[in-house]
Amino acid sequence: MSELWLVGIGTGHPGHVTLEGAEALRRAAAVLIPRKGAGKEDLAHLRLAILRAAGAAAKVIPFDMPLRDPALPYAERVERWHDAIARRWQEALTEAPDGPVALLVWGDPGLYDSTLRIAARLAPVPKLRVVPGITALQALTAAHAIPFNTVNGAVTVTTGRRLRDHGWPAGAETVVVMLDGDCSFQALAPKGRHIWWGGFLGMPEQVLESGPLAEAGPKIVTRRAEARARHGWIMDTYLIRQGA
Amino acid sequence: MSELWLVGIGTGHPGHVTLEGAEALRRAAAVLIPRKGAGKEDLAHLRLAILRAAGAAAKVIPFDMPLRDPALPYAERVERWHDAIARRWQEALTEAPDGPVALLVWGDPGLYDSTLRIAARLAPVPKLRVVPGITALQALTAAHAIPFNTVNGAVTVTTGRRLRDHGWPAGAETVVVMLDGDCSFQALAPKGRHIWWGGFLGMPEQVLESGPLAEAGPKIVTRRAEARARHGWIMDTYLIRQGA
Repeated sequence: MSELWLVGIGTGHPGHVTLEGAEALRRAAAVLIPRKGAGKEDLAHLRLAILRAAGAAAKVIPFDMPLRDPALPYAERVERWHDAIARRWQEALTEAPDGPVALLVWGDPGLYDSTLRIAARLAPVPKLRVVPGITALQALTAAHAIPFNTVNGAVTVTTGRRLRDHGWPAGAETVVVMLDGDCSFQALAPKGRHIWWGGFLGMPEQVLESGPLAEAGPKIVTRRAEARARHGWIMDTYLIRQGA
Repeated sequence: MSELWLVGIGTGHPGHVTLEGAEALRRAAAVLIPRKGAGKEDLAHLRLAILRAAGAAAKVIPFDMPLRDPALPYAERVERWHDAIARRWQEALTEAPDGPVALLVWGDPGLYDSTLRIAARLAPVPKLRVVPGITALQALTAAHAIPFNTVNGAVTVTTGRRLRDHGWPAGAETVVVMLDGDCSFQALAPKGRHIWWGGFLGMPEQVLESGPLAEAGPKIVTRRAEARARHGWIMDTYLIRQGA
């Protein structure tokens, strides 16, 4: 392998792929793709559709995603899981022809994604190229047609886990929450806060809800549970603004 | 005008345009473009190149950007400027044929951009469609091949003005600074902080610098001044991580 290309492909809308991303997929000699598992979260069919739409002729090399060990504490669980994924990549790479190898990354390779950390575990560490992609931050604000920030305002991007453990970030006006499987906004005092929520952003299944947190919060909990039951999985994100 | 489409086109790399963005430009009946001024920041040539590359046949309607009144205080200056831009759009729209009208927006229409706020001033307020685009956040982290966040970490996205006025955001680990014309990182104590900086991100003129803030900070001040003198303008962004 000459280079490893991490190609951000957006949040599930095939049109999120950039011209640079499509060209990288056409130029890649091989593409590593997680094998379709029992769940639907791997979205193997969407990855293959994106490759076809780009006109990619790369060799597709599937690999099995390892499982996380629920018995381990959080930080160690993530570390061991990344180690295990790196070993699967290393095995898969032995089947790659000469030339650049690409990985399709949901959203952007830099934003709440582990691909860069896993790539750093490969031996030897390959030369990396990162192709930026549309993230859930943009897909959410675009779907609601709202600004990310107020004029000269700051935004805190955080995780559901942090919101549960630490509450509303000190001094924050706007907070965007990623990786939240538990509707952690329920832990916040709703007064004076407005929420914009979206699931399956950019996909045909997209669901949106917004309003004062007091009213919209319970609706989101219900709609999220319904959507998740219907599809077997869900990926969602939300933005909360204080004093909006 | 049936609809106003705000199309994010990325940070200056023609490949940042998404497939959805290119298709929107092809389907638009008209495109509003700020007229090329004395400076180069309007990048009128790049906008036209993006339209050509997309195969857009839309009517191009130029408009003059008004000037900001430096005598006004910051918040009022911004408000009056947005009012004035909305009036220019309104005039330009009288020349638009039937069908959707598009605006090309650097980066993403939601992120430190005023397009949504200006569109809300139009009368009647048009039906809006927002096409997400690659932002400087992604272009910066992609260029340096670094993650935006640490594992389960939060990130504060803020402005140069806020960093100068309020210092390092309370409790923040990673801070990304937008709209900073003054290298405001110089106001921070450098100890234990690492900076990744980029100018003209994604463009052929791209300049990058990174390292411990104590050493990289002064280099960035020099390189930014040189690049700005050479090109007549500069657009730059940086990420600072504490304890990295």
